[in-house]
Amino acid sequence: MHKVIFDTDPGVDDAMALLFLHHHAEIDLLGITTVFGNATIETTTRNALYLKREWNIDAPVARGAGETFIPHRVSHEPPKFIHGDDGLGNIGVPDVVDVPLDPRPAHRFIVDIIRENPGEVTLVAVGRMTNLANALKEDPEIVSLVKEIVIMGGAFDVNGNVTPAAEANIHGDPEAADIVLTATWPVVVVGLDVTTRTVMTRQQLADIRDAAGKRAELLFDLSQFYIKFYESRVPDGMVVHDACACAYVVAPELFKTRSGAMRVICGGLADGQTIQKPDHMGFGPSDWDNLPSQNACVEIDANAVLKLIHDTIVSVKES
Amino acid sequence: MHKVIFDTDPGVDDAMALLFLHHHAEIDLLGITTVFGNATIETTTRNALYLKREWNIDAPVARGAGETFIPHRVSHEPPKFIHGDDGLGNIGVPDVVDVPLDPRPAHRFIVDIIRENPGEVTLVAVGRMTNLANALKEDPEIVSLVKEIVIMGGAFDVNGNVTPAAEANIHGDPEAADIVLTATWPVVVVGLDVTTRTVMTRQQLADIRDAAGKRAELLFDLSQFYIKFYESRVPDGMVVHDACACAYVVAPELFKTRSGAMRVICGGLADGQTIQKPDHMGFGPSDWDNLPSQNACVEIDANAVLKLIHDTIVSVKES
Ligand SMILES: [Ca+2]
Ligand SMILES: [Ca+2]
Repeated sequence: MHKVIFDTDPGVDDAMALLFLHHHAEIDLLGITTVFGNATIETTTRNALYLKREWNIDAPVARGAGETFIPHRVSHEPPKFIHGDDGLGNIGVPDVVDVPLDPRPAHRFIVDIIRENPGEVTLVAVGRMTNLANALKEDPEIVSLVKEIVIMGGAFDVNGNVTPAAEANIHGDPEAADIVLTATWPVVVVGLDVTTRTVMTRQQLADIRDAAGKRAELLFDLSQFYIKFYESRVPDGMVVHDACACAYVVAPELFKTRSGAMRVICGGLADGQTIQKPDHMGFGPSDWDNLPSQNACVEIDANAVLKLIHDTIVSVKES
Repeated sequence: MHKVIFDTDPGVDDAMALLFLHHHAEIDLLGITTVFGNATIETTTRNALYLKREWNIDAPVARGAGETFIPHRVSHEPPKFIHGDDGLGNIGVPDVVDVPLDPRPAHRFIVDIIRENPGEVTLVAVGRMTNLANALKEDPEIVSLVKEIVIMGGAFDVNGNVTPAAEANIHGDPEAADIVLTATWPVVVVGLDVTTRTVMTRQQLADIRDAAGKRAELLFDLSQFYIKFYESRVPDGMVVHDACACAYVVAPELFKTRSGAMRVICGGLADGQTIQKPDHMGFGPSDWDNLPSQNACVEIDANAVLKLIHDTIVSVKES
């Protein structure tokens, strides 16, 4: 079993990822922590509670950061044109969801859960890295107590998606991401290099709905706005960014990774860009020296990942 | 015929590129302009004169920039471990080469030759972009008078070679390169994406020497130090960066290019990195907007380019 904390900004592809984690037999979901990004922290937290309620998820939800690690940083507007005004494809999420929050802030929740399960927690972070950076600041010793950090974010050998240089999750809080990627905990980065190749077609999504029933109906409905956004970008369907990171946790053999120190560019034209120094490449002295090697996903068996998502979500049928 | 000005910092791979241009039947070499980079401007200029003399090249040599476009910029030491103390593999180039220089500075020479041959000059730049930026500053109208700019430099979908982010020619003068790549003249960038795949083996170099005689003997000798540098980087032989740019001029069909605005990162961790916004990719407003699309080489038929280099250099045998 993988004990997982899911740090998320739902978010359409976040919703699919959450349903995947909830349904997978080898995942023990210990908590959901929210972060701003695809929408404000109020909205992403409300959405997490809504999905928890609709999908009968036991794991508690802890509210996280609503602003960047460095508070005075230039901030970016939520991408309402991708995830809708409500962050879940304008399906009409109720303004208030009457489900209690965990009383702790997300970064404290993360620290507590890691300390209660030393060496066992996999932190899957698919939003901005703010909560993780705040957790590291609160308790630096957690670096040796987590099992693994798996993040969706970044773009190494391909363009970004917010700017030609930067991917959205990293661009949204570059300083936080640089802290997370350079800390001495093991990080696997599932970035645009692999996620943009993982496109679920409309038919594949409909197949999941047909096979899995009502829960997947909600997933189907909230994905339609997002699919519309992708119409001009992919031939058919949606890029399932966040679910790729979840798939990595249970099926790392479907990915090929490259090891090397990573830095995030903070400021300037390339603000939010991720750059890796592959271990085998020699350079002169550089800002990548003496940092831990982290793993970047550079190849993915996209069809197998899509099948895994399908099989996982349909595996638990509602009564 | 392609009328070519060759802007260069010889440099071992520069020497091969120069011999290629000199021997190719469709190249009319109008001038050689020097720039600092692989060695100081004194050394690269001396080397250009030396190669001109040894290879009986008619084209005049004009001395160019010895410092970055922005004079106060942090400068980088010449890579003596790659090209040798003398910039030509420590073959013992005489301190003084008694061949007259063109009296004009390189940027003035470039402007004059372009104005004398409107619409006809291809500028092949395989060193830092300083002379080109200085020429643009001196006479901005040349943008509509050149035929094409072909540069060796940059790294788009791959790591750099000086830092994980940046390639040497661009890293050596990022501000100059940003000026060159964003100017409204047509630029083709032959960067590490394709040049690092173009490795001439020891045997292939020996074959050229055996077939071409004394001129290629000099090329063979001056390349040995450089090949030694590459021992830990490629299985066998040398990366022929600069000759790839020359090959593009006469055989563009051996390359696949991608069109899009380009920027160079100036300052910070990614100093000297080249980033392209491919034309087909949509982003929000970015620093790549309203700039000319330039062509980045993203694929190369390396074997065909190596054969072209071989065939060209051996095609004119000395008497
Ligand atoms: Ca997300
Ligand atoms: Ca050169």
